[in-house]
Amino acid sequence: MARARPSGEETLIARYFKPLATEPGAFNLVDDAAILNVAGEDVVVTADAIVEGVHFLPQDPPDTVARKALRVNLSDLAAKGAIPAGFVLTLALRSADEAWLEPFARALGEDAATFGCPLLGGDTVSTPGPLMIAITAFGRVPAGSMVRRSGAKVGDRVVVTGTIGDAALGLDILKGGPIAKALADDLGGRREMLIARYRIPQPRNALARVMRGHASAAMDVSDGLAGDLAKLCAASGVSAAIDVSSVPLSATGRKLLAGGAIGIEAIVSGGDDYEILCAISEHCYESFAQQANQAGIAVTTIGTVIAGSANPRFLDAQGAELTLRRHSYSHF
Amino acid sequence: MARARPSGEETLIARYFKPLATEPGAFNLVDDAAILNVAGEDVVVTADAIVEGVHFLPQDPPDTVARKALRVNLSDLAAKGAIPAGFVLTLALRSADEAWLEPFARALGEDAATFGCPLLGGDTVSTPGPLMIAITAFGRVPAGSMVRRSGAKVGDRVVVTGTIGDAALGLDILKGGPIAKALADDLGGRREMLIARYRIPQPRNALARVMRGHASAAMDVSDGLAGDLAKLCAASGVSAAIDVSSVPLSATGRKLLAGGAIGIEAIVSGGDDYEILCAISEHCYESFAQQANQAGIAVTTIGTVIAGSANPRFLDAQGAELTLRRHSYSHF
Repeated sequence: MARARPSGEETLIARYFKPLATEPGAFNLVDDAAILNVAGEDVVVTADAIVEGVHFLPQDPPDTVARKALRVNLSDLAAKGAIPAGFVLTLALRSADEAWLEPFARALGEDAATFGCPLLGGDTVSTPGPLMIAITAFGRVPAGSMVRRSGAKVGDRVVVTGTIGDAALGLDILKGGPIAKALADDLGGRREMLIARYRIPQPRNALARVMRGHASAAMDVSDGLAGDLAKLCAASGVSAAIDVSSVPLSATGRKLLAGGAIGIEAIVSGGDDYEILCAISEHCYESFAQQANQAGIAVTTIGTVIAGSANPRFLDAQGAELTLRRHSYSHF
Repeated sequence: MARARPSGEETLIARYFKPLATEPGAFNLVDDAAILNVAGEDVVVTADAIVEGVHFLPQDPPDTVARKALRVNLSDLAAKGAIPAGFVLTLALRSADEAWLEPFARALGEDAATFGCPLLGGDTVSTPGPLMIAITAFGRVPAGSMVRRSGAKVGDRVVVTGTIGDAALGLDILKGGPIAKALADDLGGRREMLIARYRIPQPRNALARVMRGHASAAMDVSDGLAGDLAKLCAASGVSAAIDVSSVPLSATGRKLLAGGAIGIEAIVSGGDDYEILCAISEHCYESFAQQANQAGIAVTTIGTVIAGSANPRFLDAQGAELTLRRHSYSHF
């Protein structure tokens, strides 16, 4: 199978904005972060915005919106091996609604303190349209040590943190989809767990230093595992073979999959996981797994980096290749 | 006159977000930029967003929208004495419209090259609402040398660059207001000059180094001279007396004012000037004016910093105080 066509979003960026990215630290806009080098140290810079109705739902509580807005950026810093240094906030609001702003700001402050990423400044503007929270976050790494998307080598393990698919299941519940029906009578808090995974990502910043010492390449999984792995492979000039049965699922995810409420495709192409996807060489893996374990973060090998320029292959337990109609979320 | 009540926007920021600004480099969110200190050098960080229908008009050409989006940030860097180092772009679009994106990206690239401020990265998202361009820009200054809002001293001159009010007149024309009627038969390009001043700010980056060596305090005039001066005075714990007849106007602005097509209030409280407003001590002024002249930028003394916590006073040629119903633009 040839490499999947780039999404509309990637095409747009490559066509219109790549020519503007003339600094080496911009990495031709194919990484998740840029580098601003200052006096020999590197500041890792990442920007991620969330829009009401696109990245969060109008009924999502304001405290969860705040946490998501910051955490999707913290997740990028974690994957890049950077220690948070601060952020600037651009907030586009329809009105200065105190009942919304108070819990939003309080939760944002709590997360800023928790993750050591203080607010540095920003801009507050009015909009007649949907709420939008655009954050630019900064992290520090020793010069030259940011973990890139482009370093994956043939033979490396493909590794993910945590579990995959729960956030997509949570979104399905909030939208009243099949998972909402499958868990309609749930008394065990499984609905709430999945919804929380959608609304409040758990960025893996505790793994940042470990990433720097071990990963050949890394990014966070935000648009869907299959599509994000394809991006990492494309940036690295390699392909990958993934054992679908190894993809780590939560107990609830496993049960829903076994019961036929959801297909594996929705899990590997759903978005909002905010786990780290990385390539780790065989000789680094034992140390990586040990240090991740010490940091309290589960890591799972799901496949191998292989040669070639084809799209990563997702193989079932019988070795048959899954056909993914949709690899990940694209805005256009 | 007591200090004008803070705008809704300032109240919102002070109430909800100031408690989050725990870093010294955030300046309690009362400056135009923040500082990220890296290995002893300072990176000046500023964020300004523009929203369709709020900061630019739906019919504004895409190349002017691009230039405005970047230049409102460059203007902040200029006022702070910082040399541009790069920017990240968050672009919220309804669709990937090539006829809009192509000229937008081209003009953005031209300005990035002209001002030495390359694109470092960003995020492109879809929105069902108005277009929004949120830029975070970075500049460099030697450690500790960023020009603050808060340094104005009693006795300093109050100085502005360029001319004031033209952009507000340009906006009036685009909205079909009284200036549109006054210049309906204009054949001399004055309409176009004023519209260009609204659409394409001329940030004073050529003055950045001069600012560092001379200004006690500075900011750019974006929301209106009167309101922005009030902010600078409040941050510095001083007041000011402004001689309204000294406020520099373009020939067209002067003529429209003399003909009664516009009042002085609309000029000193109109927004979008993107000139630098600063306080310069008497003993620095001659050197400042000389170096500004060498840089090709007109500077004009419009008044004096005085003691007190009252709102700055705007005095006419007879020494009578103008009553300003509106000091500047506030989003809320």
